[in-house]
This record gives sequence, C-alpha cells and structure tokens, in this order.
Amino acid sequence: MKTVVYRGARRLAIEERDPRPPGPGQLRIAVAYVGICGTDLHVYHGDLDARVAAPAIIGHEMSGRVTAVAADVIGWSVGQPVTVMPTRSCGWCPACRSGHPHVCHAMDFLGLDSPGAMQSSWNVPADLVVPLPDELPLEHAALVEPVAVAVHDVRRAEVTAADQVVVVGGGPVGVLIATLARGRGARVLLVEPDPYRRAVADGIGLEVVDPHAIDVVALVDERTAGTGADVAFEVSGAAAGVATAVDVLAARGRLVMVAIHPRPRPVDLHRFFWRELELRGARLYRREDMAEAVRLVGSGAVPARQLISRIEPVEAATAAFAAMEQGGVLKVLLDLREDAR
Amino acid sequence: MKTVVYRGARRLAIEERDPRPPGPGQLRIAVAYVGICGTDLHVYHGDLDARVAAPAIIGHEMSGRVTAVAADVIGWSVGQPVTVMPTRSCGWCPACRSGHPHVCHAMDFLGLDSPGAMQSSWNVPADLVVPLPDELPLEHAALVEPVAVAVHDVRRAEVTAADQVVVVGGGPVGVLIATLARGRGARVLLVEPDPYRRAVADGIGLEVVDPHAIDVVALVDERTAGTGADVAFEVSGAAAGVATAVDVLAARGRLVMVAIHPRPRPVDLHRFFWRELELRGARLYRREDMAEAVRLVGSGAVPARQLISRIEPVEAATAAFAAMEQGGVLKVLLDLREDAR
Ligand SMILES: [Zn+2]
Ligand SMILES: [Zn+2]
Repeated sequence: MKTVVYRGARRLAIEERDPRPPGPGQLRIAVAYVGICGTDLHVYHGDLDARVAAPAIIGHEMSGRVTAVAADVIGWSVGQPVTVMPTRSCGWCPACRSGHPHVCHAMDFLGLDSPGAMQSSWNVPADLVVPLPDELPLEHAALVEPVAVAVHDVRRAEVTAADQVVVVGGGPVGVLIATLARGRGARVLLVEPDPYRRAVADGIGLEVVDPHAIDVVALVDERTAGTGADVAFEVSGAAAGVATAVDVLAARGRLVMVAIHPRPRPVDLHRFFWRELELRGARLYRREDMAEAVRLVGSGAVPARQLISRIEPVEAATAAFAAMEQGGVLKVLLDLREDAR
Repeated sequence: MKTVVYRGARRLAIEERDPRPPGPGQLRIAVAYVGICGTDLHVYHGDLDARVAAPAIIGHEMSGRVTAVAADVIGWSVGQPVTVMPTRSCGWCPACRSGHPHVCHAMDFLGLDSPGAMQSSWNVPADLVVPLPDELPLEHAALVEPVAVAVHDVRRAEVTAADQVVVVGGGPVGVLIATLARGRGARVLLVEPDPYRRAVADGIGLEVVDPHAIDVVALVDERTAGTGADVAFEVSGAAAGVATAVDVLAARGRLVMVAIHPRPRPVDLHRFFWRELELRGARLYRREDMAEAVRLVGSGAVPARQLISRIEPVEAATAAFAAMEQGGVLKVLLDLREDAR
C-alpha cells in the first residue's frame, strides 16, 4: 500500500508498506481521497514537531470503502463507503466528563497524534467510522470533515434567518461557513483579500469583498442601517481580521473564533463591554456535526465540486503541498485509490 | 439647596442654589445619600471632560424622598422613599430597537450627560424613579444602583449553584458580584491585591486571596480537580486581571467583562478556541435588575452596612473624593440631607 510519510520539515516520502489486518475493534478502509488541510501544511512546515513525531502518516479529511472488518466488530460490511471522524476523546478528562468531548484535554487526533489517512489501507477504530450514502461521489465525501467544522461553527453562532453575518477569511472553512450560514437564510458577507478565493466564492454566489479595497465596517453599517452585524466569524488568523470581526458587530453581536491565533492578540475589550458583545471559541465538531455534514454534502447544499481546486495522485503529494503553500487553490485532494492505477 | 459642582479636573465646588419646581413629567426628590462611584472619580480626574461639560452636577448612586410631584405625573406621593435608575435610553437607536436599551447608543446618563444626584433637591423624570420599601435605611438604599450592576453581571454569566466562580477585582462591584454569585449557591473565590478590600471581603465571609501572594490558576485547578472555573468576572480593569480570568476557566467557561479597559488588551484567543471559552460583555443594567437590586438590599442579602466605609457630609465632598483616590475604602457616601443640619 502507498503511504505519505512526514519525515521532518518540508520532507514527505511516498513509501510502499505492507497492509496489516485490522486489530480488535477496527475496520480496514481502502482510502480513496484525502484532503490537505491547513493543519497538514503546519505539520509539513515543522510547526507541530513537538506534537507530531516523524516519521508520521498524516491526513484526516478522507473518504474510502471498508475492505475488512475485525471479528469483534458488527454492523459494517465490506465495500461500504465511509468517512472517519478523526478525533478520539479520552472519556475521563474534565472536558469529557462535562459533556464536551470535542474539546477533550487528552484528544487523540488521527493524523497528528496517531497514524492518519494518507495511506491507501487504513486501520481505524470502528466507533470513529461514519457511513456515507452510496450515491455520494467519494471526491465530494472527502469534504465531510471540514464541512463538520463549519456546521459546528455555525451552530455555535446560533445563526438565524434574521441575521447579518460577516465571515472574515475565505479559505475552505470560511467559504463553508458562509455557505451554511446562507443556507440558514442569513445575509452573508465574506471578506477575503486573495483574488482566487474571491473568484471561487463569487462563483458559488457568495457576496465577497476585498478588505484592502473597501471599508468593511462602513459597508456593514450601510447594509444594516447603522446597526452592525449580528454574527461575525474570525477565520483569517490575522490580527487585522480580529479587529474587523469585533468592529462590525451590533449590540449583543456574537463573534465566533474559528481561526488559530498562536500569540495573544490585542482585543478591544471596551467594545465588548460597551455593546455587550460575545466571543465564543469554536473547535472541531461533535459526532452530530459529522452526521449533519454528511447530509449537507450528500444533498448538494455544499458546492463540493467548485470547492475542490485540484485532485493529485498520491505520488505528487509534495507538489500538492507546494500548491497549497503558494495559494491560488482552495481545496486540494490526494487520490490514494489503488484500483485507479 | 446644596450642590456638588464639577468645575474642571480636581475642582469640586459646594454651591448653594435655588431649588426649582419639577418640570412636566418630573418628580422632585430630596436627596439623602449619594455614593461616589469609580466613574465619578474618573470625572473628577478630568478623564471624561469630552463627555462631561463643566460646570456639571455629577453623581448617580442615590437614595431620597419625593418632595414634589408635577401636575401631569400620577402614582407618586410626597414623602415616599425612592432611588433613581440614572440611565435614559433613546428608544430609537439600533440597540433600543433590538431590545437592548441598556446599551443604547445615545444613552442619557444622569450625572454624566445631564445633571446628577449631588444636589439636595433633584428634579428627575418620573419614569426613572424606583420606589423603595419604607423600612429600608436610606444609607443602604444608596447601594441599589451598584447592586443592580452586579445583578446584571451575575445574570449575564448565568451563574448556577453548580458553578465554581472566580471574581477578579474586589472593589465594590466585585464584592457585590461575589456576594450575589454566592447567593445563587456557587463556590466563589475573590481575587484582590488591596489588604483593606480583602479584609472587608473576609469580614462578610467571602473567600479572598492576594494574587501577588498565591498562584490563582493553580489554586482554582486544585479546587476543581483540574477542571477549572465555570465562570470568571473581570472587574479589575488590569491587563493581568484579564489574563487570570482567561487562564482559570474550564472548557466552555464563561468570562464576563465588567471592567472598563480603555486600551485594547492582549487576549489569549487560542485558549478561547481550544477550550471553547466565551467572553460576554456586561454593561449597566436593565429595569428588572434595579427591581431585583431593591429586593436584595431590602432583604439583607447584600451586607450594605459592611460595604459602606464612610459617610461624609456634602461639605466634605473634596475630602471624600481624596479618600477614594487613596484607597483603603470601599464605598463612600455623601450625606445631602437638608434636615440633618
Ligand atoms: Zn477527554
Ligand atoms: Zn437607544
């Protein structure tokens, strides 16, 4: 079987390995497609070396089919199309015990803390496997995991049809959030400086503006007769994005923090006080978010085809990571299908 | 009648003026006691000169009795004990129209934007007047307004009996928040560096610690078996207070921003993301918070006697403000009773 192995900063090796039979409680999955996530890019840059010990098989956005079922596992059949929820909560930490397993303090994240999806034959605990509808193309199904992130974020914001929403950052997750918020009936404005990403967003009918070309706060004020936005999502990871997301909000507006900000950022706490704003962190997703994501991708509510910029053979993994670095792409998939060769 | 007039930075004048009859829709109130608030101190320092145009009569925490009722006002009688809700919302701004009049964008705050309570005969719109129980001492009733702030803050945090609460900052509002959170059954830890304030808090049975002497985060971790606090209130106004309030929180913990931070503060947004924390701004109070505050002061749930450090005659206003500046006091009241002389 083919594997993509992270061997240290900027070194990926395509290695042939022997597939193993699934262990107790596991399914073996013939991986079809794996999406490259911003987190995978961080690993590739060596930023996560403290957590990800090379050599490591990374990847966590995927689709595939069951090829073997351990003797102690019931309810699954060979050939069934599936994706994987790549987060395994510990069950005993304070977050798990408080009913928030998705922010588990001892999370096992498949593709970071244990072997991930960039292997054409992947053994996975059966309780993390999520069934897919037969008719869903497996390329599209590789988007289920990032869609689950967006489902969780939009749920956390409690977006309603009455809301003016501003999404700061038009990468894959930002575009998905904007799409799902629009699906709830909200008016949505996406803010993204990159022209390629703006073109993709425009192509799926989102209203998108360049923050370097227009005054976003003034535009939102104009659209809302001076009220401001009900909801903002900060998905850019930039200090300027935080400021925009805070400044556009109406009294009692909700700001959902989706992006990772490695360093503390200056925040206008006086505005939080003055307008009684709310900031809500949002991380990963829960099992019900994965189920909802399958439904949304399956129903066509998510424009999967337009969001997938390129599909590369697994042998071109290094080139695919380089394309992600250079920008000008939204979602890039690796094709790991053995039978496709 | 006696008035305390702000005449510019660090200049208060005690002036004798002729009382006027109440205008249409007004009541005239014989003011008994007026509390000096942190905001009044900011005015005194000249920090609010852009908003408060000298000469100005300041003050907004008060108690008194009705002495005259305009012909068009019904439902009030002379001699009735009252306090005043000093916030007048505009009714038409986006915040007011959205059902959040307490964060009105065009708020008329009595004592800042229009004449305040430091006058022994005060004409006030009848719709802002709040009746008091006859048996409530008027000294204690002067605390109703800051208690309403604390009621609003605790309500905004949704404190329950299951919660571990940390209050960062033990001034009057911090102590009141701690008291009311304890009243809801929560375990409460108050954090305050000033020894006098700690002694007062200790005297009313609150657990209070010095952040310069102990590691607050470690203590909270120990108390909660590593879970962290469910709720933190930032009432200190200091950058270090913000960091403590963020760092003590459990997964999905709520941080209520009560203090005014004039400049942006560095905030660990990664922790908001990672633990799905929430930040909620809390400003002023609503009419129902004032009513609840009257009930709490009236029932003895608020230890009013212990919170009032000094009561000074109006003629000693400058000395009272100086005492506030020097610290070593919690709440200082001015006595404006005409019949007391
Ligand atoms: Zn856990
Ligand atoms: Zn208003």
